[in-house]
Amino acid sequence: MSNTIGNIYRFTIWGQSHAPAIGVTIEGIPAGTVIDLDRLQNFLARRRPGQDPYSTGRKEEDLPEFIAGVKCGHSGESADKEQAHTAVVCGSPVTALIRNTNTRSSDYDELKYIPRPGHADYAAMVRFGEARDHSGGGQFSGRMTAPLCIAGGIAMQLLEQMGITVSARAVMIGGETDPERMLQAIETAKAEGDSVGGIVECVIDGVPAGIGEPMFDGIENRIAATVFGIPAVKGIEFGAGFACAGMKGSENNDPFILTDGGNDDGDILNRVATCGNNHGGSLGGLTSGMPIVFRAAFKPTPSIAKEQRSVDTRTGEEVTLSVKGRHDPCIVRMAVPAVEAAAAASLYDLIRLYESEER
Amino acid sequence: MSNTIGNIYRFTIWGQSHAPAIGVTIEGIPAGTVIDLDRLQNFLARRRPGQDPYSTGRKEEDLPEFIAGVKCGHSGESADKEQAHTAVVCGSPVTALIRNTNTRSSDYDELKYIPRPGHADYAAMVRFGEARDHSGGGQFSGRMTAPLCIAGGIAMQLLEQMGITVSARAVMIGGETDPERMLQAIETAKAEGDSVGGIVECVIDGVPAGIGEPMFDGIENRIAATVFGIPAVKGIEFGAGFACAGMKGSENNDPFILTDGGNDDGDILNRVATCGNNHGGSLGGLTSGMPIVFRAAFKPTPSIAKEQRSVDTRTGEEVTLSVKGRHDPCIVRMAVPAVEAAAAASLYDLIRLYESEER
Amino acid sequence: MSNTIGNIYRFTIWGQSHAPAIGVTIEGIPAGTVIDLDRLQNFLARRRPGQDPYSTGRKEEDLPEFIAGVKCGHSGESADKEQAHTAVVCGSPVTALIRNTNTRSSDYDELKYIPRPGHADYAAMVRFGEARDHSGGGQFSGRMTAPLCIAGGIAMQLLEQMGITVSARAVMIGGETDPERMLQAIETAKAEGDSVGGIVECVIDGVPAGIGEPMFDGIENRIAATVFGIPAVKGIEFGAGFACAGMKGSENNDPFILTDGGNDDGDILNRVATCGNNHGGSLGGLTSGMPIVFRAAFKPTPSIAKEQRSVDTRTGEEVTLSVKGRHDPCIVRMAVPAVEAAAAASLYDLIRLYESEER
Amino acid sequence: MSNTIGNIYRFTIWGQSHAPAIGVTIEGIPAGTVIDLDRLQNFLARRRPGQDPYSTGRKEEDLPEFIAGVKCGHSGESADKEQAHTAVVCGSPVTALIRNTNTRSSDYDELKYIPRPGHADYAAMVRFGEARDHSGGGQFSGRMTAPLCIAGGIAMQLLEQMGITVSARAVMIGGETDPERMLQAIETAKAEGDSVGGIVECVIDGVPAGIGEPMFDGIENRIAATVFGIPAVKGIEFGAGFACAGMKGSENNDPFILTDGGNDDGDILNRVATCGNNHGGSLGGLTSGMPIVFRAAFKPTPSIAKEQRSVDTRTGEEVTLSVKGRHDPCIVRMAVPAVEAAAAASLYDLIRLYESEER
Repeated sequence: MSNTIGNIYRFTIWGQSHAPAIGVTIEGIPAGTVIDLDRLQNFLARRRPGQDPYSTGRKEEDLPEFIAGVKCGHSGESADKEQAHTAVVCGSPVTALIRNTNTRSSDYDELKYIPRPGHADYAAMVRFGEARDHSGGGQFSGRMTAPLCIAGGIAMQLLEQMGITVSARAVMIGGETDPERMLQAIETAKAEGDSVGGIVECVIDGVPAGIGEPMFDGIENRIAATVFGIPAVKGIEFGAGFACAGMKGSENNDPFILTDGGNDDGDILNRVATCGNNHGGSLGGLTSGMPIVFRAAFKPTPSIAKEQRSVDTRTGEEVTLSVKGRHDPCIVRMAVPAVEAAAAASLYDLIRLYESEER
Repeated sequence: MSNTIGNIYRFTIWGQSHAPAIGVTIEGIPAGTVIDLDRLQNFLARRRPGQDPYSTGRKEEDLPEFIAGVKCGHSGESADKEQAHTAVVCGSPVTALIRNTNTRSSDYDELKYIPRPGHADYAAMVRFGEARDHSGGGQFSGRMTAPLCIAGGIAMQLLEQMGITVSARAVMIGGETDPERMLQAIETAKAEGDSVGGIVECVIDGVPAGIGEPMFDGIENRIAATVFGIPAVKGIEFGAGFACAGMKGSENNDPFILTDGGNDDGDILNRVATCGNNHGGSLGGLTSGMPIVFRAAFKPTPSIAKEQRSVDTRTGEEVTLSVKGRHDPCIVRMAVPAVEAAAAASLYDLIRLYESEER
Repeated sequence: MSNTIGNIYRFTIWGQSHAPAIGVTIEGIPAGTVIDLDRLQNFLARRRPGQDPYSTGRKEEDLPEFIAGVKCGHSGESADKEQAHTAVVCGSPVTALIRNTNTRSSDYDELKYIPRPGHADYAAMVRFGEARDHSGGGQFSGRMTAPLCIAGGIAMQLLEQMGITVSARAVMIGGETDPERMLQAIETAKAEGDSVGGIVECVIDGVPAGIGEPMFDGIENRIAATVFGIPAVKGIEFGAGFACAGMKGSENNDPFILTDGGNDDGDILNRVATCGNNHGGSLGGLTSGMPIVFRAAFKPTPSIAKEQRSVDTRTGEEVTLSVKGRHDPCIVRMAVPAVEAAAAASLYDLIRLYESEER
Repeated sequence: MSNTIGNIYRFTIWGQSHAPAIGVTIEGIPAGTVIDLDRLQNFLARRRPGQDPYSTGRKEEDLPEFIAGVKCGHSGESADKEQAHTAVVCGSPVTALIRNTNTRSSDYDELKYIPRPGHADYAAMVRFGEARDHSGGGQFSGRMTAPLCIAGGIAMQLLEQMGITVSARAVMIGGETDPERMLQAIETAKAEGDSVGGIVECVIDGVPAGIGEPMFDGIENRIAATVFGIPAVKGIEFGAGFACAGMKGSENNDPFILTDGGNDDGDILNRVATCGNNHGGSLGGLTSGMPIVFRAAFKPTPSIAKEQRSVDTRTGEEVTLSVKGRHDPCIVRMAVPAVEAAAAASLYDLIRLYESEER
């Protein structure tokens, strides 16, 4: 129900932080698609913890292993330990997994009955009962963005062949907008046993006008539905977003102009553009031909060493809790590729829907 | 593809502003459900234009006519012109329509080839070509929130029987947060031939913990996907939302406490609550038992009398445009019930999914 | 949940036999599609009761009224009572309804608590309780094939533009395979207050190879899922069907041969065909380029004048029942266009999925 | 698109015969469900090739390895090689895989460009081009019923807790209905380098009345859509099926009677049954409370040693082909558990939909 999204480019993310593996099953990749595994690897590496002194101590290679749906090679555990550089999609669903090797479940033992503030623990206790897998955050772990990045990374490669690029970056961390100060904010939080949140901005260039399905499958609906699948996202806005709520129509409306139209095919419609992009590339749920621009707000990492109040659900006693284990003081930078992945997968699916009408 | 949402409580919105009718077809209402048509009517009346001096001149009764799926009465055109007060759902899909009676399509004639800034016009021209229905905004009209309110209004009645209430209000209009000043901002905009946007906040009380499906069908994903179906929405945030991006974890995390538990059934889990609600009632996509709180940002009405730049897509000439016709200088207050409707329909569907597990 | 089918060409059928209307809402018709309303009318007329002396006395025009999704004309109730001959799809969902005018609900009064053998009555009593709409069969009425024929009739027009034709006919009625004897069988059954069933065969010509999605969205799965939506269908088989269960592989396998390839583009694949069509145009769920051939088995009309045993569910008494009202002694011929409609809608949706991959 | 089925109990089957693995990802298993792995294993063993002298030489253990979604144990490759006997579902999607170990791809080399009569080869060449995975039948292999059996086997365990049993058996093979003669027919076919088909009948006992969603998600539609996902199925019929097409209504209709009602709760509806089961447990798409009975027709195995005509698609030459490799002369008995699996998964999903209405 929950872990699947998309109509044509449709994928299901599965796994838990400390299960044997996490992974993704993707339907709708055209047969013959050549997946560049090296680039996919590099893309995944951007979300991997353990990249800088500020981030979590858990280091994993996170090599995706393609166990189904490709013909010519699967990275990771191939027989001769030599890694394939490409995989050719054969037309059946593609399944890739990442093995969970470096887990220390005992770190989580005391948390089984004491919900961590800001985490899904309590809600999951109610929903899943004793059966829930709490280790490492289970299915709610930030680690689940790795399979999202596999699905989105492949979508990015497919989009790129259409001249579409997806690019996100952190534009605010811990209240700071200057990159250097962002790092300081993280360092300070770490030192204090605390954490910081931030905002990721994503820009998609090269999207033709007219993509998206009005009302509930518009470009905004779909990106939002996917982006809220990334742990810690608490808000999303397109173009001027919340700021436009304070503007007048005459300020916010982006006037239409006529561009030169480099590849002028005589079609006036192809030369229309807007002056300004308060609308963030989406009008009425359809793309306008301008860059799609959106921002996602991330709350600070809920796992902190600082003492917090909670309840021991066995006894009903109120307790204080200091979350141990390896936790990033800031997941915002690691979330950047996940935001790109969510946007790319959403957009590619809508393009496929659009293409289904072509004659 | 586009106008349908929901898994079990699933509905399709159809129609255009100046088509013979707009309406909605709803699957998944349990047989035997008694729809209170008077309350539904009152709910719809809240979104109707023409309610106050600041809003559009178009006045329509917007009586929903139930033409399928109910047994005991359909409002509107019953044989004896006497209006039924209730309708009993018989177990087949429910279809309700609202006839479009008060339309002045000629107001839109000049707009067929000149896209209005801030509107879907240009994107729709590209997507649908000559066939698009531009009159009155066609399928992109704010009028399409009426069928959404039918689907959502019925969901609200169903939720109420579970003790769940959904309540939204405008918390900002034209930069103002004081209700009186909001009205002034609208009046000023109207006088200037301009428009204003705003922010609607929605609170859902009485939701049990554990509702929602992790990852892509969480309470946030679903509400976001539905709310972005309301025209003019450009952002959504839950709980502290964008503000939490600037907080520390120790500030943002809502500590768990033990409440008295009025209806104490001995289950400690039922007595756990949070102190504060920065998380807006959602943790990991599941409800926490705290009120669900979200805010949606509305851009200012794009149709304004003030002159704006656009392009005549027949000739390629840049032109200036003053949008005539009856346009609200602010659609935010009219959008309030639509926000409630979107939230209620999303939540009710997730509750049904949850219920499917009960033994 | 129940009344919707399709991924891209997706439609929801709604209504009950004695509700104000029955109808269909269709998503996924490309904007600009011109619906030939006269041909659609003629297609619908083929399923209409009251066409010959053997069929039910209920006569209705069954004119579909397009109330949404089309721009240029809607048949039925246009302002000047002059009927439009075409409708142009504008890109939003298309809704067409047929008003129920000629209903005599009192015919059904005694049946409210006494389930008719062979009908859905008893199952619906259990499922929907007192709220079920039993008049005229409610949502289970054969009349519900009219909206299916609207959706399928439009699909047939879209397929025809691709050179694909869908054609069904009754190949057996009441055990007879000769057309004249089929009529006699119906007449005999009518005279006896009884009814007969039959088999409808459908052939789809002009389908390119490779359409369909392996495993659960193959051409067979989809056609079967849709055809079982036609009341009274109890079986379906493709190609040699049940007969092939008794063949040897060497008999059943259709050998591949090379055809001349009239429109020879040098591609050998386009010139491959099979010798024989035991496979009914489907191999592994994908079309083979040969005609799709399937047969659907219809049980005899359950409503008969002859006395049958049933139970009065109020008192628990076993009673005898003679079903009054206007009932066809054979619905097979009326079902023929419904079978075509089901096949066409299924196939067109799969073609759209296929097209989504084209570059 | 293609390999996923179900609304709530939804699963995606993935893999190819000679990929590293085949498997299934299942959403919608209630958290806390205890999967009996030994029984699942035994169920899978029933479909495994290599069980008797008549079947293929390929022997594999086909141990399913649960790599996600369960907490307490995964069979197959656990660290200490000791096999867990149960797995507890934790509330996230369950992924189980079966490694492909015993593959001899070279057997298939010559078949890459010469489509085997009766196989999906040619259709897949057209659809997937050079990228298709032809080894071992790729995604069209009968081996893909193993993951179906995992999904269906779990559904069977869940149904059993509700008192519902699913049981299928071969009722005809090679034209013979006597078990001993069935075996002879297989042996004869094998000796001749030929193959035989057959018919599998499935009976589901203990299903309450009222399950299923009218029109397109009825019990017949769903079972048919799933059963056609099993390779070689060419027809399906419920109850009297095709035979009822030759009956009169008075013969085919199953009269309603009143039973004693062992667990008499005073509800007359619970005591109603039918005399006879020509309707096969389904009326109007809803279950009637009688056993669900259906039959599926299987064509003879298309891979035969006997020479057949085909085309070399590289050269356009017509060639003769003798399919080498390990092929069963009859897949009907191996398909029996797959039929049970398809039925169980379909029914369990519909029961979940039904349950979603319960208060």
